[in-house]
Amino acid sequence: MPYGYNGKILHVDLTAASWTVETPDEQWYRTYMGGSGFLAYYLLKEIAAEIDPLSADNVLVFAGSVVTGVPLSGFNRYTIGAKSPLTGAFAETEAGGYWGPEMKFAGFDALVIRGQAEKPVYLWIRDGEVEIRDAAAVWGLDNWETLEAIRQETGEKRARVASIGPAGEKQVRYACVQNDLEHYNGRTGMGAVMGSKNLKAIAVRGSHKMQTADPEKVKEIARWHNQRIKTHPPNAGLTKFGTPALLQGINDAGFLPTRNFREGVFEGAEQLAAPNYHETIFHSKGTCYGCAVRCKRRVSSDAPDYPLDERFGGPEYEALSGLGSLLGIDNLPAVARGTQLCNLLGLDVISTGAVIAFAMECFEKGILTETDTGGRAIPFGDADAMIWLIEEIAHRRGVGELLALGVKRAAEKIGRGAERYAFHIKGQELGFHDGRGKTGMALGFALSPTGADHIETPHDVAFQGDAVSKLFPMGYFNPVDPLQTDAEKMRFFFVGQKAWGINNLLGLCNFVSVPIHAMTFERLVEAVRAITGWDTSLYELVQATERANTMARVFNNREGFSPKDDTLIRRWFEAMPEGPLKGRRIDPDQFRELVGLYYEMSGWDDQGRPTRGKLVSLDLAWLADSAA
Amino acid sequence: MPYGYNGKILHVDLTAASWTVETPDEQWYRTYMGGSGFLAYYLLKEIAAEIDPLSADNVLVFAGSVVTGVPLSGFNRYTIGAKSPLTGAFAETEAGGYWGPEMKFAGFDALVIRGQAEKPVYLWIRDGEVEIRDAAAVWGLDNWETLEAIRQETGEKRARVASIGPAGEKQVRYACVQNDLEHYNGRTGMGAVMGSKNLKAIAVRGSHKMQTADPEKVKEIARWHNQRIKTHPPNAGLTKFGTPALLQGINDAGFLPTRNFREGVFEGAEQLAAPNYHETIFHSKGTCYGCAVRCKRRVSSDAPDYPLDERFGGPEYEALSGLGSLLGIDNLPAVARGTQLCNLLGLDVISTGAVIAFAMECFEKGILTETDTGGRAIPFGDADAMIWLIEEIAHRRGVGELLALGVKRAAEKIGRGAERYAFHIKGQELGFHDGRGKTGMALGFALSPTGADHIETPHDVAFQGDAVSKLFPMGYFNPVDPLQTDAEKMRFFFVGQKAWGINNLLGLCNFVSVPIHAMTFERLVEAVRAITGWDTSLYELVQATERANTMARVFNNREGFSPKDDTLIRRWFEAMPEGPLKGRRIDPDQFRELVGLYYEMSGWDDQGRPTRGKLVSLDLAWLADSAA
Repeated sequence: MPYGYNGKILHVDLTAASWTVETPDEQWYRTYMGGSGFLAYYLLKEIAAEIDPLSADNVLVFAGSVVTGVPLSGFNRYTIGAKSPLTGAFAETEAGGYWGPEMKFAGFDALVIRGQAEKPVYLWIRDGEVEIRDAAAVWGLDNWETLEAIRQETGEKRARVASIGPAGEKQVRYACVQNDLEHYNGRTGMGAVMGSKNLKAIAVRGSHKMQTADPEKVKEIARWHNQRIKTHPPNAGLTKFGTPALLQGINDAGFLPTRNFREGVFEGAEQLAAPNYHETIFHSKGTCYGCAVRCKRRVSSDAPDYPLDERFGGPEYEALSGLGSLLGIDNLPAVARGTQLCNLLGLDVISTGAVIAFAMECFEKGILTETDTGGRAIPFGDADAMIWLIEEIAHRRGVGELLALGVKRAAEKIGRGAERYAFHIKGQELGFHDGRGKTGMALGFALSPTGADHIETPHDVAFQGDAVSKLFPMGYFNPVDPLQTDAEKMRFFFVGQKAWGINNLLGLCNFVSVPIHAMTFERLVEAVRAITGWDTSLYELVQATERANTMARVFNNREGFSPKDDTLIRRWFEAMPEGPLKGRRIDPDQFRELVGLYYEMSGWDDQGRPTRGKLVSLDLAWLADSAA
Repeated sequence: MPYGYNGKILHVDLTAASWTVETPDEQWYRTYMGGSGFLAYYLLKEIAAEIDPLSADNVLVFAGSVVTGVPLSGFNRYTIGAKSPLTGAFAETEAGGYWGPEMKFAGFDALVIRGQAEKPVYLWIRDGEVEIRDAAAVWGLDNWETLEAIRQETGEKRARVASIGPAGEKQVRYACVQNDLEHYNGRTGMGAVMGSKNLKAIAVRGSHKMQTADPEKVKEIARWHNQRIKTHPPNAGLTKFGTPALLQGINDAGFLPTRNFREGVFEGAEQLAAPNYHETIFHSKGTCYGCAVRCKRRVSSDAPDYPLDERFGGPEYEALSGLGSLLGIDNLPAVARGTQLCNLLGLDVISTGAVIAFAMECFEKGILTETDTGGRAIPFGDADAMIWLIEEIAHRRGVGELLALGVKRAAEKIGRGAERYAFHIKGQELGFHDGRGKTGMALGFALSPTGADHIETPHDVAFQGDAVSKLFPMGYFNPVDPLQTDAEKMRFFFVGQKAWGINNLLGLCNFVSVPIHAMTFERLVEAVRAITGWDTSLYELVQATERANTMARVFNNREGFSPKDDTLIRRWFEAMPEGPLKGRRIDPDQFRELVGLYYEMSGWDDQGRPTRGKLVSLDLAWLADSAA
């Protein structure tokens, strides 16, 4: 080989306050590659079955990939995983920004963190040197204060800091990890795991820029890609309006999650949509390392009721829906303020919105009353109740103590039929996509190892119209209907999931990478070849993706997950009550049949367990033998 | 798409003496691509279960591929298939030469031939025009005479003719189809199927040269490839000595099939090996359309006992082994003469050698006697007996009537324990590779839908030493031992089979294509893209290969084949008696376990039947539903 990928993995034992460096060989890097692959490897190797996710026994992994750190648009997301305190399952959550590449520049492809510090600490990693530092001074601070304090303390203004807020410290089960207050490893409660380990933050700074096997080729691809981003419609739209661009169309199509998924059309959508957003609260754009899309929005406002600070991030589509339509709230500044509170306090805005929607519907139904809330009404549409609940949850005060558990555990605790309004899959609240309007997304939610998770899921939009041609390198497809639920749709989903999975394997952004955006499979493979020097192919990338996904499945099976957990929420089996999709539901028998078909397609048995043959074919004979 | 592949399929009904032209759409071409894919499609669609392969109900397919006709080295093989009269299973047999591209130039990607002509006919296809011509004048002629006569009769000296000899006319179950007397669709008895249809030959001539989407790119790849062929060691060796180059090394390693696979070292190997071949009988080199390798050998000799004519082809490795070491014969001119007789009379030299070896061993054991042979001794080592038997078989005279059935049927007819010496898999005699010396080949023989077939099988040599790096685009591999029989070996076989299968899908030659020769996967994919204009990938080519292989399996299951047929010959479960591999055997339990593992890896159930999920994932839902 002309170039061997040489990398390092940092192992930190917080209990022992010690660290070691592992230098895996070439074969390991090619087998696991990054992101979901690194997680799958370490979670299976290092985490014993049935441990408490909030104990010292959990292992927390921060993973880049073999391409992280190269200045190509959308190539620089990083991944956090562990056993999830929200689901008890495989956890995986990605974020963009500058932290991932900086970890690489500081010398490491991934961090594997064991044990539990006796007192709060943070990690300071600079050019291969590691310090486990006392975090007494920053414990209790919000994410912005933490960032500022750590930069001051380390004397490094350009340190990148992944941190948790008070919600993470208090182990709210859906606490997130953030960097720069506009990039969030939101799902699966990784902030709570950091909190349980007394790990406030990880600051990184490095000067080792990535060496690539063919720098000229990488530059050529970057130029081509950045130019193409300007004109490729979906990317150009994201540059102009960010993800808020999506909201109006989803509402118009009749599946904007509204009032806890009860409805698919929100009467206040226009207030939340991109044009109003840009006219009223928009401040400026943000981006990630090396990325020309600039999809991030910053917002500002001096209005006293809902002040907005441009340093604290702006709402994405998910926040607009989750703190807006899902709660029946059309007050955009309030939604943006709620978002900034989540950012500062360290709450996953998706689960937070879903939990508040659950609480509001329980309140409407009389399942939760003012007795539970300490005398405060929390009806749908009440923006101030939303703001108040975010703070109560983050600090686990009052009803927030209950809601900090997530909808599944909260409903169990409440009883009184509350579980009828607790919408989750495998314990994780849903991203704001209604499966009645896109059946591929529904399948993804049901089958993702992390529970309902729109980042782990191919979006149906890739299968529609001309967009389907982007999948052509994986075979010939005719467009399918987002509402289709047959074997043909399942084949799309199956192939689409492999295509999409490459993103989380390599830390690529769904917004620039294949299949729907400006990057193409051909150029993606060229990029991986040019960066690593490997004689790789789309075939190998798909294999590695399937390998990681299969390993996550094995992890979940080991934790007792079974086909009954590969399900959807009750509401999607019920007819959409109004709007363009009125009457539309997912047929539960047909859905169950498709899930069974997926198992067969995947080489899993009828209990959803990968066969030994499938594991061997994925070069996982070691796992076949240990799992048997 | 910038370029749509437009092609035509010619359907001929010999019973009705009529023909029609089908113009499949783009999706069909991308799904089935060519060769094994075209066969799989038409054999499953057009052939009813349990028909007699030698009846009008059989359907005979001649298939090129979407790349056939482009002047790239090794890109111009064509494939014949039907239900095999030798095995009753899926038949597939490839040949090089000029016939395949000429069929394309004449306007067709494939021919699908049904029914049975009342009297002998041949097809004359010229630039899209089709004639079903009376073959009375050529019936009974040998292949050379047939070629000459048809060229004269059509007035087209440059017509390319695929024909059968007397063996095919008489429906010897392993009769072959040939073109130019140096290119043979040898295996699975397709000559007998032509004979049963009263179809003597198919002559083609066309002036439509292939249009490609990117002619400059195709030229650039051709230049690169042809240059590389000169220096890439395996190709350079083939250019110098052809396949006879292989014999000495195989003998030295101890697994040259000798005296009906009883031994692995032949004392007369040096007489048969390349240096002696080139010093004594070598005349000149031949090649295929557009190919720079020139691996074909022509031989000549004026010696009166074994005259050799340079127009009638020279022995390849398989003939040297099958009419030489396998029979204990070290007389090279006799072996070459036997080869030329097979060529002229239209017998598959592999099955012919194996049948004669079977007869000779039966003779040695007293199972066949001079009563059976009409008074002639047929001991191992008797060159004249070999020559005599070839003619007796081709004309189905005397003992040849019995031996024309192939070893399986002949042994059943003989009884008296003859089946102990009848070496076949699924009814097809073995290519001359001893599985005790290369376990990957053994697995391939057991699992090929066509029965023992070295062309359908990845060669272990690709997994050894540096050669393994050629597989890298499909994943990272460490070299494995040719004698290894564990899950790791099975993974290699599984992946290698996919890589190799691309050859038979697209009509590429094993001697120039990946994984062991000068072509690389990267450039192969580039070539397919440049030729077709398709946005394809290695992933899609592997999928199409797996699709074709899976369909062949479904075909065989429908015919009643089951796991008991996925086996090896008794002798490989017994210890090699002498030589470097002395004592070496394949453990039958371990072998059975590996076959079961292969089923699982392939998405087949424990009866070796592809699951519905596997079929759906390969875009074969139509087959899942029809097979259910």
